Amino acid sequence: MYKRKLETCFSPALFEPGDHLESIVVIIDILRASSAIVTAFANGAVKIIPVGEVSAAKDYKNRGFLVAAERDGYVLDFADFGNSPFNFTRERVEGKTIVYNTTNGTGVINKASTAYMTIVGSFLNIRALTQFLKRQERSVLLFCAGWKQRFNIEDAVCAGAMAEELMKSGLYSTICDSTLAAMDLWSLARPDLPGYIEKTAQRTRLRDKKLDDCLEFCLSFDYTDKIPVIENGVLVNNTF
Amino acid sequence: MYKRKLETCFSPALFEPGDHLESIVVIIDILRASSAIVTAFANGAVKIIPVGEVSAAKDYKNRGFLVAAERDGYVLDFADFGNSPFNFTRERVEGKTIVYNTTNGTGVINKASTAYMTIVGSFLNIRALTQFLKRQERSVLLFCAGWKQRFNIEDAVCAGAMAEELMKSGLYSTICDSTLAAMDLWSLARPDLPGYIEKTAQRTRLRDKKLDDCLEFCLSFDYTDKIPVIENGVLVNNTF
Repeated sequence: MYKRKLETCFSPALFEPGDHLESIVVIIDILRASSAIVTAFANGAVKIIPVGEVSAAKDYKNRGFLVAAERDGYVLDFADFGNSPFNFTRERVEGKTIVYNTTNGTGVINKASTAYMTIVGSFLNIRALTQFLKRQERSVLLFCAGWKQRFNIEDAVCAGAMAEELMKSGLYSTICDSTLAAMDLWSLARPDLPGYIEKTAQRTRLRDKKLDDCLEFCLSFDYTDKIPVIENGVLVNNTF
Repeated sequence: MYKRKLETCFSPALFEPGDHLESIVVIIDILRASSAIVTAFANGAVKIIPVGEVSAAKDYKNRGFLVAAERDGYVLDFADFGNSPFNFTRERVEGKTIVYNTTNGTGVINKASTAYMTIVGSFLNIRALTQFLKRQERSVLLFCAGWKQRFNIEDAVCAGAMAEELMKSGLYSTICDSTLAAMDLWSLARPDLPGYIEKTAQRTRLRDKKLDDCLEFCLSFDYTDKIPVIENGVLVNNTF
């Protein structure tokens, strides 16, 4: 039987678009962008437009859009809210299109958009996402967004949890050291995920900025079965 | 007390030279370049000249130099020998200058040479190297050479072993997720290092090319107390 390839990329700086043109790419940025995006769709958002420039986000705001905008975790003054999944409540986002301006995310989305399909993953939708992937006849790249181009532990651990579930199915093969290392880190994290994440740099940054109220939520499993997918640069709900 | 920073970089594509101008950078490429270089100095080599271009290596050969040259693990026809540490015997290298042409190494050395000091590490000199580092009042970057810009497990595990030894001293602090992940991978590898390395991509490549006779040697500890250092682009023995 032909086996699909499973690979993991630990940083946007390591992403090689030409290797994944026929693959499904899963963007993972659990603290907090991918968790926030998944939450928005769980609460009924219909579309998220990622924008890289603050000026473009302001422009959308002036045209009446709901705008999420932050830099280094802080909400920008003109924006409706920031990057915490707790901002994306049903009351605020149901039926809405949201413009999303992030530090890291837009660049990652642009890079990943050369793939056959690009979806957004987190612990919050991990079961639905891995079930979905198993039903597709496609190789998979788990694309960790990292932090300012650097490796980070929390995204690697989430990739490891996804990889374990996919490898268990017997449908995939991997000769990718990043995937194997991610699975090993996940094996260490699994018995106490919040405890394991405690030592990471992003955990410390969020605590220092008092932005860590959503941490437990971001590390919880299967809040939703929604799988955001990128179509023409815009995030929509996966209806496959 | 001021604590020195300890950081780890998992790929040349992630190296940010400006961050390490005052640090000691340790280049780690254990299968097989850094193990071969350390072995050469252990066996009495006096100097290793890294060259990136095959034509330059040929030129040195024509001028009577001993030349190590390989591409993807195979010895080039004009060269005296390749990349295996077993090539660098005392009989061949004692008192000699060696020209070393490698797939990956020269680029890594050039990148790292912007640091305060650049040295070469492997399991073969790990004790001497960590002892040396502890005596210096400097921050340290453990620079994994990876494979074709990618993360690899074997270099990460060696970095983790070094990091553990350095952190134990209480002289260093780290908020670098790569360092923490490397130490965690090392904690999994330590009980059976060759067994752990068995799953890696480079292990498979070396086996497929029948170049894996040196594997056990490359994973053995404290063969030598020599610490190669890069001075003006040339590797010499560290006499500090």
